[in-house]
Amino acid sequence: MTAYFDNSATTKPCEKAVEKMLFTLRECWGNPSSSHEKGVEAQMLLDSCRKTLADKLSCSPQEIFFTSGGTESNNIAVLGAARAAARSGKKVITGAVEHPSVMRAFDRLESEGFEVIRIGTDRFGRIDLAAMEDALDGSTTLVSVMAVNNELGTVEPTAEIAALIRKKAPRALFHVDAVQAFGKIPLSVRRPAVDLMSVSSHKIHGPKGVGALYVKKGTKLQALSFGGGQESNLRPGTEAMPAIAGFATAVEELTTEKSLKKVTALRDELVENLSKIPGLVINSPVEALPYIVNISLPGYPSETVLNFLSDMDIYVSSGSACSKGHRSHVLTAAGLPAEIIDSSLRISFSRYTTPRELEYLIEGLKRATERIMKR
Amino acid sequence: MTAYFDNSATTKPCEKAVEKMLFTLRECWGNPSSSHEKGVEAQMLLDSCRKTLADKLSCSPQEIFFTSGGTESNNIAVLGAARAAARSGKKVITGAVEHPSVMRAFDRLESEGFEVIRIGTDRFGRIDLAAMEDALDGSTTLVSVMAVNNELGTVEPTAEIAALIRKKAPRALFHVDAVQAFGKIPLSVRRPAVDLMSVSSHKIHGPKGVGALYVKKGTKLQALSFGGGQESNLRPGTEAMPAIAGFATAVEELTTEKSLKKVTALRDELVENLSKIPGLVINSPVEALPYIVNISLPGYPSETVLNFLSDMDIYVSSGSACSKGHRSHVLTAAGLPAEIIDSSLRISFSRYTTPRELEYLIEGLKRATERIMKR
Repeated sequence: MTAYFDNSATTKPCEKAVEKMLFTLRECWGNPSSSHEKGVEAQMLLDSCRKTLADKLSCSPQEIFFTSGGTESNNIAVLGAARAAARSGKKVITGAVEHPSVMRAFDRLESEGFEVIRIGTDRFGRIDLAAMEDALDGSTTLVSVMAVNNELGTVEPTAEIAALIRKKAPRALFHVDAVQAFGKIPLSVRRPAVDLMSVSSHKIHGPKGVGALYVKKGTKLQALSFGGGQESNLRPGTEAMPAIAGFATAVEELTTEKSLKKVTALRDELVENLSKIPGLVINSPVEALPYIVNISLPGYPSETVLNFLSDMDIYVSSGSACSKGHRSHVLTAAGLPAEIIDSSLRISFSRYTTPRELEYLIEGLKRATERIMKR
Repeated sequence: MTAYFDNSATTKPCEKAVEKMLFTLRECWGNPSSSHEKGVEAQMLLDSCRKTLADKLSCSPQEIFFTSGGTESNNIAVLGAARAAARSGKKVITGAVEHPSVMRAFDRLESEGFEVIRIGTDRFGRIDLAAMEDALDGSTTLVSVMAVNNELGTVEPTAEIAALIRKKAPRALFHVDAVQAFGKIPLSVRRPAVDLMSVSSHKIHGPKGVGALYVKKGTKLQALSFGGGQESNLRPGTEAMPAIAGFATAVEELTTEKSLKKVTALRDELVENLSKIPGLVINSPVEALPYIVNISLPGYPSETVLNFLSDMDIYVSSGSACSKGHRSHVLTAAGLPAEIIDSSLRISFSRYTTPRELEYLIEGLKRATERIMKR
């Protein structure tokens, strides 16, 4: 028995996506830039994939740019928008609990002379709206906030932030890193109105190595790389067709609202059972995205429990996969005490998670606390 | 009957690579950054892929960085090296017939205040060594030249350039864009000694969406993107595992010297037959890489012949796939007359090209000239 509860790190590609990739690799393997038949057929496939993404995000295909993943989408959005607007202002704002690909991009902007404001959060990693309102002003050119936090599942107040931007910094672009939200909650680039939105394939049962960036028509971005003009010069290079086709198919397979109900039920059952484990603390807020439950077993280092569970073929994570080996900056920014942070575990669901897996996870967590406690 | 002669634009993934991708998608789909078993197994696969590339290029695995393709490899090398060295010098040198991903990166450097020298070529696109020697001096920080030209097949004098750099600009880094050479001629990062070398998967029967950059130990590069620390912070983002595994498998499948012999024989047969077509001109030099034969039928626009052939399911290209719709900058830089450029066709082989396909191509070219001539 295997129980995979690390779906926020990565998901297993769904079979339909795999089959579409196979078709792309074996049949439709032309270069979309080639003008002969093999190229035209690849270009048609690329167009249809772009339309799939556009339909899902309620935008036009011309506003979708394929990238190599969430990290590249976030980098193009943050660096590209701030640098393109540098002449009219150098004040940029982000949250204190963002993904490293946003956080490090802002660090980079700071080293280039930008004024970077990092807005703090409450103990659930929820952005402080009063601080955001204070920070926003006419010289602000960019605000970047995630839709759902990748460690806590906290849903960030993006609609409220969009309203604050409209009121206090109408020239600022609004970027939302929707990597953990995409496919899990209904999402559109219109509500809240955003200028830039990042999504990734491998968090929604598509392949690794591909993502997309929504760029509202007319938005000025400075490209990070240069080449043969693909993706309207914003992201050149021969298109990653197998991955793009797999991604679009995974998007077609999404059953967002139905899955949300299913996962909510599983999460509720988990939380009920967790409450019976003495000393266990739940770090995620009750209103979090149910796909992520962050817990702590104070006194038990994350790695110890993680390894115990891994030996039982139960896979959870300590913090995010993207900050391997480092103390969580999210839980630190949320102001949680060291013993909570150092014993934290992230349990993350997928729409394919089964009740049987959940039962096994609960069994594993019980055994872990009993065994490790005895030592 | 189909005859695909556009292998320099892209190749059909080999079956072994496809199967390895399937394994990665269905079995080994963990995130290499996860510390549990599923992550460890993905990390081991990633390590073995890196070793495959390192062995093939005669370097250490720590010197191989996976990227999203040739364009990103070239951009990281050119922009990354020049920017990292900007304090010690701003003179950078490249050829006039480079791929757009190198050319446009140098254009970008120029707009950032770098002094960019573009070395001209002879009529075969072969870099002028005397001009290179004149341009090199102590303030030069980077030289970037392709190993094999993508439109003409011309083998550039990289060994001679390496020697000139050692003599006249010992501090300069040497980057070789080996995208068209990799897997087609024996290649190593030691002979000639280079600091940076770009290779791509989809030109050698691997999937699109992945490439690699060799970075000699100790070489300083400024990253283009920022994130979770993958690829030693040079190229962050969850690794494109299916594509990387497919790429490494395609590398294992390479039979460079045997294929070179086979393709040379096919090329020789093609050239012999082409010489019988009245008015046809061969633009590639006789000593070119036999995988590419660039021809012109003065008076017949490339697109007309290309479409005629495409209707027969014979696929060739006009110029490179990466400069769709534009007049070839390579043939222009080589100083060829307009009627040669506007009627040029690139025929490009693969090790899987069959004598039957070649026969059909020759038949198609004959028919094309006869029919179009009659109009």
